[in-house]
Amino acid sequence: MARRMTYCLGIVTKDGLVMAADSRTNAGSDQVRQTRKLFTFGTDGERAFFVAVSGSLSGTQSVMTLLDREFALGKGLAEAPTMYDAARHVGKIVRDVSTLDRASLEQDGFSFNPHFLLGGQIKGEPTQLYLVYPQGNPLRATEESPFLQIGEAKYGRPILDRGIRYGQTSLVDAARYALISLDSTMKSNATVGPPIDLAMYVDGELHGKRRRRFSPDDPLLNDIRLRWDRALREAVQGLPVINLQAGEQ
Amino acid sequence: MARRMTYCLGIVTKDGLVMAADSRTNAGSDQVRQTRKLFTFGTDGERAFFVAVSGSLSGTQSVMTLLDREFALGKGLAEAPTMYDAARHVGKIVRDVSTLDRASLEQDGFSFNPHFLLGGQIKGEPTQLYLVYPQGNPLRATEESPFLQIGEAKYGRPILDRGIRYGQTSLVDAARYALISLDSTMKSNATVGPPIDLAMYVDGELHGKRRRRFSPDDPLLNDIRLRWDRALREAVQGLPVINLQAGEQ
Repeated sequence: MARRMTYCLGIVTKDGLVMAADSRTNAGSDQVRQTRKLFTFGTDGERAFFVAVSGSLSGTQSVMTLLDREFALGKGLAEAPTMYDAARHVGKIVRDVSTLDRASLEQDGFSFNPHFLLGGQIKGEPTQLYLVYPQGNPLRATEESPFLQIGEAKYGRPILDRGIRYGQTSLVDAARYALISLDSTMKSNATVGPPIDLAMYVDGELHGKRRRRFSPDDPLLNDIRLRWDRALREAVQGLPVINLQAGEQ
Repeated sequence: MARRMTYCLGIVTKDGLVMAADSRTNAGSDQVRQTRKLFTFGTDGERAFFVAVSGSLSGTQSVMTLLDREFALGKGLAEAPTMYDAARHVGKIVRDVSTLDRASLEQDGFSFNPHFLLGGQIKGEPTQLYLVYPQGNPLRATEESPFLQIGEAKYGRPILDRGIRYGQTSLVDAARYALISLDSTMKSNATVGPPIDLAMYVDGELHGKRRRRFSPDDPLLNDIRLRWDRALREAVQGLPVINLQAGEQ
């Protein structure tokens, strides 16, 4: 019941933001389906938000429905004065849905576990990235910890730990790291699956239009995979020989 | 209580076997210590075994003590006619310790969770690698699944999934992959720590003497780390540009 059927990540750099998500969902291992887990809200020229979700579809869908409905009325994320307030508002909606559903879920042994990444920018503020927990509390990505992950996060983490540096990683590189991190996770874990949704945000542009969906047979994704696999093999060949002689200790 | 304070792996190739383990243990986050998790048994020219352990130190220590005591008397692993029987024997000792300890542990909310990797060769048989579960049942590595992991396995898995091929990976490369997999895990997770113990076994040699311990400041390990980090960065630079233009979808 506590399956990890998702992997989403966000990376904030000095130039902006990259967010990515897989699309696999299921209800038991015989009902594998596809669902979008990366969403955009915005008022061009004023604010741009990207939201990625993990956890049971029922819970994340309710939260997204409520955020959407408010936004259309100029409320909620549409009027949050700062990114911190926006993250707090997502947390408030999470708590509202928790109030509605948690007791009934737990009564039957299910848990209430939606996680959210909220990235973006409100005019006058820097680009920011938050994780909102199922309890509604927010955590912000910092220069020291410039990426955040939700869902099945371990497989895709070492490459981010090795590569991402807030002040040095370009947005193009951040997008490459995000795709590799997701692709590695899909390769090692069948509960995370294609297509991959990728969004890029350039600091100051205040719109959410840079998005792309990579299907499993996307030529660019395949090219990246092939080159990455080859480069890793070559990198291993380039390492010093570890030839343990008998008796060495 | 169900902390994952270990990462061990074994890789079997057409030329032999590589096994590796970290050395971190603790009893609460303020008692971080060091303990060996990779052991060797053998009768030169006749049989060579490598055992790696994860799970609470009390359980794995009991199992190793019993295996050791038997071996000194020419029993247990010393007389197992095949590697399958050897793995079954480790499982039997695991069940003996479970009979001694499980009820008392579970009564106080602890779990009985020792995992073992048993690799090696008995004269007349091919080199083999097994995982023995806390329930005592064995799983063998195969040509299709030539590596097995215990403990905190997810961080270090993608590099193995991408790189290890039973028929193609040399022993030297397997040792490189094992070190990188362990180093990546230590970088991403503080509960897995140095030194790293590495063992290599060349099919047919029937002794367990190729072993090396890498301290955190081992020059060879540092060289591998530096080269690997640099190679990954260069590999990322060599990937196609993912430059999402506004409006692309």
